[in-house]
Amino acid sequence: MTHDQLFIKMAIDSWNGQVTATSKLLDQLSDEQLQEQVAPGKNRGIYLLGHLVSVHDKMLSLLLLGEELYPELYPVFVQSPDGAVAGLPVTIAQLRQQWTQVNAKLAEQFAQLSAEDWFGRHANISAEDWAKEPHRNRLNVLLSRTNHLSNHRGQLALLVKK
Amino acid sequence: MTHDQLFIKMAIDSWNGQVTATSKLLDQLSDEQLQEQVAPGKNRGIYLLGHLVSVHDKMLSLLLLGEELYPELYPVFVQSPDGAVAGLPVTIAQLRQQWTQVNAKLAEQFAQLSAEDWFGRHANISAEDWAKEPHRNRLNVLLSRTNHLSNHRGQLALLVKK
Repeated sequence: MTHDQLFIKMAIDSWNGQVTATSKLLDQLSDEQLQEQVAPGKNRGIYLLGHLVSVHDKMLSLLLLGEELYPELYPVFVQSPDGAVAGLPVTIAQLRQQWTQVNAKLAEQFAQLSAEDWFGRHANISAEDWAKEPHRNRLNVLLSRTNHLSNHRGQLALLVKK
Repeated sequence: MTHDQLFIKMAIDSWNGQVTATSKLLDQLSDEQLQEQVAPGKNRGIYLLGHLVSVHDKMLSLLLLGEELYPELYPVFVQSPDGAVAGLPVTIAQLRQQWTQVNAKLAEQFAQLSAEDWFGRHANISAEDWAKEPHRNRLNVLLSRTNHLSNHRGQLALLVKK
């Protein structure tokens, strides 16, 4: 394995590890538990789940892999705080399915990217800026979103009963 | 920049980003807030801080960068759950200092590692296993510990008053 292949594998393994751990956690949590706040006065489980689905969905366009599947989630779960939108546009059952589907779609797309693709620029940086800051590539987005997922997975884990 | 240099920069930037964000969060939290549980029945802030200091401290030996600075923390904050050890061996003020010191020590050591060092094996894998699984290198430990930090930072953030 070349170093390119190695660190792309490491970054994707790291992402997959967090996705798998979050899926297992969601399987442990009932719909009722996901309706609860992770701590008093903080985000509900359902909001964090919607937030993660929407942020992952947005990765499709950001990484130039296609159109978003669920653009209707973004204004509710990313651009608005929890509780701001009365009557969520989706049920928990739908969000659970979307979580699985968006991650499957990303995995399918990731498998088709070459090393050069991963080191290429993403949708949110101009060719000019990217020439000066080549670390702002698709692989960097993957590292960043893996941390984002870890962060919220730690919060969702608080909903598990001891 | 070569791909090796780029990826190492991306991994270290990602680590530094999480360390900096956690330091800012700790500055926002009073000692009294760190004595609280992040959610009812869950870990206290002080336990999570001690846990992070100890896990980062352990990275020194794991990454073959030197001896641990605070080995006395490991049995209390990693090998035992919160509340199991009556009378913690450190104060919050000490843990805050240790957090700064261990991360400074790691940064100093990271700056001296070459790309080949980063792709080399760490202390917890044999030469034989590493030959078969070369992704289990020092850089992979850094990615993994960055996720670990993100996970617990998300929990500590719940202690911030709205």
